[in-house]
Amino acid sequence: MTAPATDDHRFVISLGCRDQTGIVARISAFLTEVGGWIVEAAYHADADSGWFFTRQAVRASSVSMSVDELRAKFAEVAAELGPDTEWSLHDTREPKRVVLLVSKEGHCLHDLLGRAAGGELPAEICAVIGNHPDLGDVTRRHGIDFHHVPFSKDPAERGPSFDRVRELVDAHNPDAVVLARFMQVLPAELCEHWAGRAINIHHSFLPSFVGARPYHQAFTRGVKLIGATCHYVTAELDAGPIIEQDVIRVDHADAVADMVRQGRDIEKLVLSRGLRWHLEDRVLVHGRKTVVFS
Amino acid sequence: MTAPATDDHRFVISLGCRDQTGIVARISAFLTEVGGWIVEAAYHADADSGWFFTRQAVRASSVSMSVDELRAKFAEVAAELGPDTEWSLHDTREPKRVVLLVSKEGHCLHDLLGRAAGGELPAEICAVIGNHPDLGDVTRRHGIDFHHVPFSKDPAERGPSFDRVRELVDAHNPDAVVLARFMQVLPAELCEHWAGRAINIHHSFLPSFVGARPYHQAFTRGVKLIGATCHYVTAELDAGPIIEQDVIRVDHADAVADMVRQGRDIEKLVLSRGLRWHLEDRVLVHGRKTVVFS
Amino acid sequence: MTAPATDDHRFVISLGCRDQTGIVARISAFLTEVGGWIVEAAYHADADSGWFFTRQAVRASSVSMSVDELRAKFAEVAAELGPDTEWSLHDTREPKRVVLLVSKEGHCLHDLLGRAAGGELPAEICAVIGNHPDLGDVTRRHGIDFHHVPFSKDPAERGPSFDRVRELVDAHNPDAVVLARFMQVLPAELCEHWAGRAINIHHSFLPSFVGARPYHQAFTRGVKLIGATCHYVTAELDAGPIIEQDVIRVDHADAVADMVRQGRDIEKLVLSRGLRWHLEDRVLVHGRKTVVFS
Amino acid sequence: MTAPATDDHRFVISLGCRDQTGIVARISAFLTEVGGWIVEAAYHADADSGWFFTRQAVRASSVSMSVDELRAKFAEVAAELGPDTEWSLHDTREPKRVVLLVSKEGHCLHDLLGRAAGGELPAEICAVIGNHPDLGDVTRRHGIDFHHVPFSKDPAERGPSFDRVRELVDAHNPDAVVLARFMQVLPAELCEHWAGRAINIHHSFLPSFVGARPYHQAFTRGVKLIGATCHYVTAELDAGPIIEQDVIRVDHADAVADMVRQGRDIEKLVLSRGLRWHLEDRVLVHGRKTVVFS
Repeated sequence: MTAPATDDHRFVISLGCRDQTGIVARISAFLTEVGGWIVEAAYHADADSGWFFTRQAVRASSVSMSVDELRAKFAEVAAELGPDTEWSLHDTREPKRVVLLVSKEGHCLHDLLGRAAGGELPAEICAVIGNHPDLGDVTRRHGIDFHHVPFSKDPAERGPSFDRVRELVDAHNPDAVVLARFMQVLPAELCEHWAGRAINIHHSFLPSFVGARPYHQAFTRGVKLIGATCHYVTAELDAGPIIEQDVIRVDHADAVADMVRQGRDIEKLVLSRGLRWHLEDRVLVHGRKTVVFS
Repeated sequence: MTAPATDDHRFVISLGCRDQTGIVARISAFLTEVGGWIVEAAYHADADSGWFFTRQAVRASSVSMSVDELRAKFAEVAAELGPDTEWSLHDTREPKRVVLLVSKEGHCLHDLLGRAAGGELPAEICAVIGNHPDLGDVTRRHGIDFHHVPFSKDPAERGPSFDRVRELVDAHNPDAVVLARFMQVLPAELCEHWAGRAINIHHSFLPSFVGARPYHQAFTRGVKLIGATCHYVTAELDAGPIIEQDVIRVDHADAVADMVRQGRDIEKLVLSRGLRWHLEDRVLVHGRKTVVFS
Repeated sequence: MTAPATDDHRFVISLGCRDQTGIVARISAFLTEVGGWIVEAAYHADADSGWFFTRQAVRASSVSMSVDELRAKFAEVAAELGPDTEWSLHDTREPKRVVLLVSKEGHCLHDLLGRAAGGELPAEICAVIGNHPDLGDVTRRHGIDFHHVPFSKDPAERGPSFDRVRELVDAHNPDAVVLARFMQVLPAELCEHWAGRAINIHHSFLPSFVGARPYHQAFTRGVKLIGATCHYVTAELDAGPIIEQDVIRVDHADAVADMVRQGRDIEKLVLSRGLRWHLEDRVLVHGRKTVVFS
Repeated sequence: MTAPATDDHRFVISLGCRDQTGIVARISAFLTEVGGWIVEAAYHADADSGWFFTRQAVRASSVSMSVDELRAKFAEVAAELGPDTEWSLHDTREPKRVVLLVSKEGHCLHDLLGRAAGGELPAEICAVIGNHPDLGDVTRRHGIDFHHVPFSKDPAERGPSFDRVRELVDAHNPDAVVLARFMQVLPAELCEHWAGRAINIHHSFLPSFVGARPYHQAFTRGVKLIGATCHYVTAELDAGPIIEQDVIRVDHADAVADMVRQGRDIEKLVLSRGLRWHLEDRVLVHGRKTVVFS
């Protein structure tokens, strides 16, 4: 009854609905009916919001129908669970696509390119867009397109640049638009347009030190830990649903430059974890918060 | 549909069985049938051993029958899942009982007594047994019986002492026998007798530094982190299934005495977490390993 | 040349002065002159403020004079380093004194009492003062005086209560006044009066979640780590110099009550570490920040 | 009195000698004499071995002589401290050199190349040598020489390969020879030849899980944390002086492949930290242990 080790082809269901008795029974009965061998299952009922969340991964080889048929059938189950049920059903053989937005600081880009090269990222990096040209060479060396879109110093004149970025990004219809230290605040309409797909790495332990120069803020306040936060981008600056956070210890001997250097390691880790979970459909958003089935 | 906040009365099912299709469906169908409102559900299928584990907590108030009736009915479900299925069904209103074995070092005892006094421990501490009398006063100040059972310096002559400890412990039929820095190696027959209930805190990050004086071993080796391990006691010394571990950073400036002092904080944390999970039926043992639905 | 292991009698010098060439040379020449065997030495030059900090511990037995003579002689060295030099010279055989302020939540009190009972706290707990009587019994069981000082519900009428607390505290002339989850905001004049001695434990990773109910704030924001902060009390709420901070991981499954429970462990650790460092003269304050020679 | 922010040119003294009264005074008097502005100073007296360690960094611009003159003068001071005194004096403008040994797993290589590209590594990567050709392309893309040295499957016939590696490495006279997941056990004579310069990253929290396939060992044992260890290479396998270690939490749901993936992040962090400290002369070795002035 043990599947071959190489059989890592999965159908992944993520679902959120109003909490009620019998949800697990309904979904698991359906999966049993179609022969689905569950290899991962996670549930969460949020008492506060009255919302229920689940993620289930089944062996594709155990299911007696195509993914499209499965989607059609599961739609009926989802409908039974209420009109505001939100769900997705992903076939892990359908590759996911990512576009990265960068500026001058390359550590997050290097990290993601290295992970992609090592086969560790469950997605293809389709393109990298920079508001500065600095990271073009390293991107192209990995055989990935780099687009330089200059931005005006005057915030009021950045509209055309954002239009160009939008056009370049949307050409790939990506599953994730990653602001890998992009350093530009997205206009509200782009936040809305990429809602649930735009992911930012902020170099502080939010909600502390929102906005610019968080390591300087941390230094001035004399905190004993610095951190990084991976979150979905929303119109309110640095206030979107948090996917992942982590911290590292600093002390009085650490100048701002030391914090910047040590913080990079945390930024890379937190962004790569958050992005992986997003791409594997492990992150379910509800209101201002996330459920992460890591 | 929201239960009152004070309704924390639960029926908790823990189950391990051979992995197969339909387990979740079978259990959740049963729970739906008896009206069970699931507030926590966790699953794990271990590909390595082909074993399946689950823990489910339902609101007692949502179930239409007594806990004894529920147990009788669930026994049928469990039987369907195979003859070697192991399960328990616990009513959180049935209080759990703990007996502590101690020696001279009091930090773990103080910590557990403080937690009990603060209502944080999901169990009653029935008695404390020490091979030295040192911790008698603090125990009695908390209104708990303390038994001093002297041990011979000669390991060959400790049999009667262990017999006396066994007698004192078994009088309470405890859900957990906690070796809270007891410093005596249990004989194999006692390990067998209390199998799955005897819990030890070892003051190293196992499997490093098995046996005596682990902080001295750690100092000599020059490790940069020291740790503690909470594990079930088995006949093989410090080799039982691990429930919880944690570490703390040390450096060259830390002498053995500093490691001992800092290590105490980790020992307390790791033991209290491991014990809590054990008492809440979150720890399922299979072979040499544990599944912890924390 | 190795001193006996039991010789832990120290003279500890802490000093802060304007940074300049030759400070280390001046102090170490002085210590060599009086025969001082340095067992710990730490230095920090803060480039930002131009201030220099040092802490040195010497074996008392190696010094050829009494602590009072040593103080008199060292005062001349300190004077050479500038008129705004701040320093202390502590004899570790002169016991330090602590007074604790508490409310109803007992975990920090239990923890400190347990540490004191185990000989782990480098100070005597002289008295505990509570604005509620709840923690009187446990305090007295440890043979320590407990004073209940009721506080009016009306903040405007709390003056007499604070006067009484001040009187009770000052009777012991303590080295540390610890707000061990005291839940009352000290008036500015008390902050000033106990400046550098009043230590608070705040149950968040400051500067996030200042003020009341930080775990509720953390839950609402959906952070992935919760923390605690030990800091000196100043007139600005939760904004005093930070001594120590730490965090623990939480996730979507943790309700506020879970955060409260898990947070207690971090509060205890952070407070006990911060208090220990304060009592061992390891914390030097400059402006809004601390240097901690841990 | 504040030096310009860009003045990061330093002379760094590292010294170990028999502990005695007056060492700090002697060294600091010397530094004062030559005008040295100390920007970092760390000391450690090891009571166990009776050995004293220090590292001091002074602003090069503050010293009134060349680095060679300074070395000549300091040699006299060191000689006064005893015949077995070990010391070095490094000018941070003299670039350090690193050679990397790799196999097929590229994550540590990618990480170090990314850090070098970002200007974060205080050294030049002179060459990369692989016993497989797999990582040649990524290395050359960064403009760095890659040498493929095939190794026989028969351990007895690997001598010529090791000779070739030695020749290639020694051509650069590197300050560090980094085994970045090299997967070949160095012969004793190479360990001796590169003593204090050969640095390995082992993918476990040593001394647990020495040797091959440590993640498999960790999985089998059921540990709750996995780790990595950066250490100097000695003839005894995985037993050299430890420079840095760190761990990450795993649980029952993590298969070996998950541990491998998560472990990579810890390996990268631990190796990059350990290597940085080595290159900045922050690591002093004494016997089987290190002092790390991080």
